[in-house]
Amino acid sequence: MSFIAQLKAAWQKNNSLLCVGLDPDPAKFPAHLRGKPDAIFQFCAGIADATADLACAFKPQIAYFAARRAEDQLEALIAHIHDKHPNVPVILDAKRGDIGSTAEQYAIEAFERYRADAVTVNPYMGRDSVEPWLAYKDKGVILLCRTSNPGGSDLQFQKVGPGGTAIYELVAEMVAKDWNPDGKYAGQLGLVVGATFPGEIARVREIVGELPLLVPGIGAQGGDIEATVKAGKTAAGTGLMINSSRAILYAGKDEDYAAAARQVALETRDAINRWR
Amino acid sequence: MSFIAQLKAAWQKNNSLLCVGLDPDPAKFPAHLRGKPDAIFQFCAGIADATADLACAFKPQIAYFAARRAEDQLEALIAHIHDKHPNVPVILDAKRGDIGSTAEQYAIEAFERYRADAVTVNPYMGRDSVEPWLAYKDKGVILLCRTSNPGGSDLQFQKVGPGGTAIYELVAEMVAKDWNPDGKYAGQLGLVVGATFPGEIARVREIVGELPLLVPGIGAQGGDIEATVKAGKTAAGTGLMINSSRAILYAGKDEDYAAAARQVALETRDAINRWR
Repeated sequence: MSFIAQLKAAWQKNNSLLCVGLDPDPAKFPAHLRGKPDAIFQFCAGIADATADLACAFKPQIAYFAARRAEDQLEALIAHIHDKHPNVPVILDAKRGDIGSTAEQYAIEAFERYRADAVTVNPYMGRDSVEPWLAYKDKGVILLCRTSNPGGSDLQFQKVGPGGTAIYELVAEMVAKDWNPDGKYAGQLGLVVGATFPGEIARVREIVGELPLLVPGIGAQGGDIEATVKAGKTAAGTGLMINSSRAILYAGKDEDYAAAARQVALETRDAINRWR
Repeated sequence: MSFIAQLKAAWQKNNSLLCVGLDPDPAKFPAHLRGKPDAIFQFCAGIADATADLACAFKPQIAYFAARRAEDQLEALIAHIHDKHPNVPVILDAKRGDIGSTAEQYAIEAFERYRADAVTVNPYMGRDSVEPWLAYKDKGVILLCRTSNPGGSDLQFQKVGPGGTAIYELVAEMVAKDWNPDGKYAGQLGLVVGATFPGEIARVREIVGELPLLVPGIGAQGGDIEATVKAGKTAAGTGLMINSSRAILYAGKDEDYAAAARQVALETRDAINRWR
């Protein structure tokens, strides 16, 4: 099944636009997991099992695994999610970006080695840096557009051309049109737009039609749920993967961490649904 | 020793501006290495040993290792270079880019796990995505500026502001000035500028003063050595890390591949030196 079909099915089945971000930081793990050789896998699998009926996607952040030589635990985690929760697609948050044969190697890493359903990619190197990813017809490629951090404006908010188009708008246009001739890759493409800029979410939605938007920045980063949903939802009341990581992962500090995570995920899903 | 001090010492000791790119593709390995469990390490270590007195840097591309679950071989390779060739710094070509705590994890991956001396980073997410890397005072952070691929122009050649500054020029200005207040990080920063655009190498050199430039695109990608060196060298005749990967790595197809690689590296180094 293609990424977009998986995503649509998960939006409907779980009545959810919530993406659960998996950024495992062992220093924040409950005591009963600390020191275990597969603590990262155990922690994340516990979160996934507790929230799989509340999420439209899981988003493991590869840096948290790579910093600790835990690639094998990332492989095991994604395999676990595919096995136990086949209805919830996995977005590998890797923000890769390179050209030609190197981009092909990164695509092998994300899609063949880790078996992710989608990946985040940086657009700075342009169209031919994205094409090797799009060769995988069933996979999603979610390009950075407007990021939620303060420095995001350094480049993304620069204005180009006579109309003063911002770079983030240009990226949205390129991804929706130039890099997607005749809608050829429409079911494969998505964009990252931070929740800290609802006005810009609305602008991106205007440019890209139904393209799914991955929206980080609610929860710990302070983005507003009402404003995000109103700005980003499609006519069908979907089109969004609203990510929360830390607020869910570290809701509890003890053996009941997964139950605490479930409670926050439930509240977040429902808070999102209030504005759909 | 800091990255810039290592680089300056290697420029001088080896009389070389050549960076040897390590992009190991097992399908192109000589027959005697194929099927060996540590073939990637063996192949790359052979290249490093054969070219260490001819290079100012080695640049392993992490995707080639990650696609094959060969992180352990990348660790072993960098440890081997540090041990046997301590005068030649290692640039981990990873083109990472993320924010806050995630960027910190990537920095741990590159600098603590792999012990790279420098890393390539994508500037799209702006200043605060770069700062966690700069916290490592002895390490180099080489930002993508003008890449050598056709799609590089999609964003990098967009013109902003009344003067029509191209995005790649803006990145050069930000890295040299805004992101480097009072020259605080001068010895840590560098830029990637492709050899396929000599006019733009010259423009970047004009903007950034003595900042080192990593220049991919000679050899297999067709960039011109004379034009690259003339456009990019500093007054001291240095300032460049001119990368060649495939033309060196796959110069020979048999057991003598390392000797063949040495010959091409020698010719390339000398061809570069002709124009310094």
